[in-house]
Amino acid sequence: MQTIRVDTPSAKYEVFAGSGLLETLVPRIEKSAGRLPRRVFVLTSPEIWALWSETFLHSFPEPPVTLFLAPGEQHKTMAHVERLTREMIRAGGDRSSLLIAFGGGIVGDVGGFVAAIFMRGIPYVQVPTTFLAQVDSSIGGKVGVNLPEGKNLVGNFHHPRAVFADIGVLGTLPGRELRAGLMESIKAGIIRDRSLLRFLEEQAEAVLDRDLKALERVIAASIRMKADVVNKDERESGLRMILNFGHTVGHALESVTRYKAMLHGEAIAWGMVAALALGWQRETITASQMDRLESLIYRYGPLPALKLRAKKIVAATGGDKKNVGGVRRFVLPHGIGDAGVVEDVTEAELEAAVAYMLEKATNDKSAS
Amino acid sequence: MQTIRVDTPSAKYEVFAGSGLLETLVPRIEKSAGRLPRRVFVLTSPEIWALWSETFLHSFPEPPVTLFLAPGEQHKTMAHVERLTREMIRAGGDRSSLLIAFGGGIVGDVGGFVAAIFMRGIPYVQVPTTFLAQVDSSIGGKVGVNLPEGKNLVGNFHHPRAVFADIGVLGTLPGRELRAGLMESIKAGIIRDRSLLRFLEEQAEAVLDRDLKALERVIAASIRMKADVVNKDERESGLRMILNFGHTVGHALESVTRYKAMLHGEAIAWGMVAALALGWQRETITASQMDRLESLIYRYGPLPALKLRAKKIVAATGGDKKNVGGVRRFVLPHGIGDAGVVEDVTEAELEAAVAYMLEKATNDKSAS
Repeated sequence: MQTIRVDTPSAKYEVFAGSGLLETLVPRIEKSAGRLPRRVFVLTSPEIWALWSETFLHSFPEPPVTLFLAPGEQHKTMAHVERLTREMIRAGGDRSSLLIAFGGGIVGDVGGFVAAIFMRGIPYVQVPTTFLAQVDSSIGGKVGVNLPEGKNLVGNFHHPRAVFADIGVLGTLPGRELRAGLMESIKAGIIRDRSLLRFLEEQAEAVLDRDLKALERVIAASIRMKADVVNKDERESGLRMILNFGHTVGHALESVTRYKAMLHGEAIAWGMVAALALGWQRETITASQMDRLESLIYRYGPLPALKLRAKKIVAATGGDKKNVGGVRRFVLPHGIGDAGVVEDVTEAELEAAVAYMLEKATNDKSAS
Repeated sequence: MQTIRVDTPSAKYEVFAGSGLLETLVPRIEKSAGRLPRRVFVLTSPEIWALWSETFLHSFPEPPVTLFLAPGEQHKTMAHVERLTREMIRAGGDRSSLLIAFGGGIVGDVGGFVAAIFMRGIPYVQVPTTFLAQVDSSIGGKVGVNLPEGKNLVGNFHHPRAVFADIGVLGTLPGRELRAGLMESIKAGIIRDRSLLRFLEEQAEAVLDRDLKALERVIAASIRMKADVVNKDERESGLRMILNFGHTVGHALESVTRYKAMLHGEAIAWGMVAALALGWQRETITASQMDRLESLIYRYGPLPALKLRAKKIVAATGGDKKNVGGVRRFVLPHGIGDAGVVEDVTEAELEAAVAYMLEKATNDKSAS
C-alpha cells in the first residue's frame, strides 16, 4: 500500500492506494475521520453494490444506510442531488453524519456534492472503484453535477476526509474502462512525470493485464502527480489548470456526442491528440516527441472512431469553464513531462489541430 | 453610515449600513470586490425591481443581467437554483462573473447559494432590502434552500464580498414585515446586547415610525452583534448556536403551518416566548425579566394568533438542524443580554413551554 498526502490551505488528508483496503474499511475510516457517527450513508451504484457489498460491509458493526445512483452521466443532475438529500433527511441524517462515496467518478462527484451541501456540509470519504476515479476524480475536492448546458457547471470544492483506492476492486472493471482510465495516467506522465511515462511505455503489457504491482505503481504515481499539483494550487488559479491537458477538446467531444458515444477517458485521449497537434504546430514539442506520445496513447486503445465536423467541435469548446472573461485557455505540452497554459490560441489554429485528430479518428488503426 | 467588519478564518469583508448606498453601488462594490467583471448578474424579486431598479441602476455603466425569483418560501428550492444557474450559463456567465443578491432574505439565501455552486463558486455581494435580511440573513455566509422535508436543509457557507444595507429602501417595506424583522433585533438584545434592548424599549415609537437615525442605530447594533458572534465561531460549532434563540420552536411553527401562516420574524417571536418560558421554568431568568422581555416582543406586535396543538409543535422540532446525533439542543436566556445552549431539555419541559406560548397566542391581546 502507498500513502499520498494532500495538504492544501483548506484540507489535509491521505490517499491510500493498495490491495485489501475494502474489507478493512471501518478501522481505516476511523483512523482518518474519527469514530463512525450514528448515521453513516453509503452512496453507490447498483452494479458495484451487487459485486462488492459483501466485502464492503465486512468491517461494519452495523450496515450503513444505502443510497443508490444509477450509472451514466444522465444521472449526474441536480434532481438526483435533491432526491439523495431528501432520502438522507428521511433516514435520520444530521450534521454529524458521514457519507461514503463508493463507486466510479460520477458517484464520487455526486456524493461529494451531496456531502458539500447537505446541512451546509458534512464529512465524507471516497472509495473509488474505477481506475479513473482512483487516479483523478476522487482527489482534489472538486465535486458537482452537470447542467443540460454542460458538464460540471455547478459544484463545490469539498475535500474528503480520506480516499481509499482499493486496486483489487479493479479486477471486475471492464477492459474498456480500465484503458480509458489509463489515459489520465498517460496525461500525468505527459504533463509532469517522465518516469511514469516510461513505465507506461515499457510495462504496457503488465499494466493492461492488471498485474497488481504494476497497477499500484501507475495508480500511486498518478495520484501523487495530481496531489502535488492540487497542494500547490487548490483553487485552480494557475498550476492546477495543467491538469486540464486534453480536456478542452475532450469536453467538447463529450458535449457534441451528448456523453453517449465514448467514455470520459476516451474523449480525453482524443483531446490529448489534438493538444499534442497544437503543440507540434507551435513547436512546443518536436515531431518525434509527438510520435512517441501519440503511439503511447494508441497503445492503450483502441479509441472510438469519430464522425464529426471540426467546426462543430471547436464551437463546443466555447462553453468550457476554463474560459474566463471570453479568453480561450489551452494547455500545451512542453516537451515530455512538462506543460503550460496559453491564452492566445486562435480558432483557425484549434481547427487545424482538431482536423488532425479527426483524420486519425477516422482513417487510423487507432480507432475501433 | 456605519461600517461593521466581518473577519473569519475563511473571509474578511465589510457590512455597510446607512442611507443613499443604493444609488452609489458600483463605486462601492468596486472598492470592496474589485473592478466589475464582464458579466454581472443581479438576482432580485419582481416587486423590488419594480420599486427600486431605477435607483439601483443609477451607477451602472451598463445594466447587469437581471434574474428573477418570485417571492415566497415556496420558491426557495433546488429547482429554482438549477434554473438560475442555467440562465447564467446561457447569458455568458463564467468563473469571473459577479452576482448581486438584491432583495429580501430568500433572494439573499438563494442568490448566495447560486454563487456558491455556480462553476464551483463565484463572488457575490448582498444588497438586502428587508429589515430581516439587513440585520440577519445577509450576514455570516449561510446560504441555501429548503427541501420539502424542512427549511435550509441544503446549502453552503459562502461569504459575500460585501453587504450594503440601504436603510432608505426600508421606506417601502410593509409595516408587518418591518415589525417581524425587528424581532431579530430584539433577539440580538436578549442574547447579547442590553444597551440595544433598552434602546428598543425606549425608542419603540421612533423605530416603528422608521425614523432613519433610530433605524440605523438598531440595524447597525444588530449587525454588529451577529458579526461579532460569526467572527468568533464561523461554522456554528459553539457560540454561533446562540443566534438560534427562539428558532427551535420558531422553525417548528413555520414547518407545521407550511410557511404560509406567518412571517419568519413572527414565528421567531413566538419561538422566543416559548424559549423565555423554558428559561423561566428553569430559573435562568426571573419572572420580572420574563415579563419585561415578553412585553417588548408584544410592543413590536401584533403577532398572528396560533391554533395549533403543543404536541404537534414539539414533534416538529425533531427535524431541526441543531439536533446532532439525536440530542435536542436548545438556546436559553441567561438573564438579560446573555444566553447559552443546553442539551437536556425533555419533551415534557418543552411541551409546557409551548403550551404557555399557545395560551398567549390564543387569549392574549398580543395576538391579532
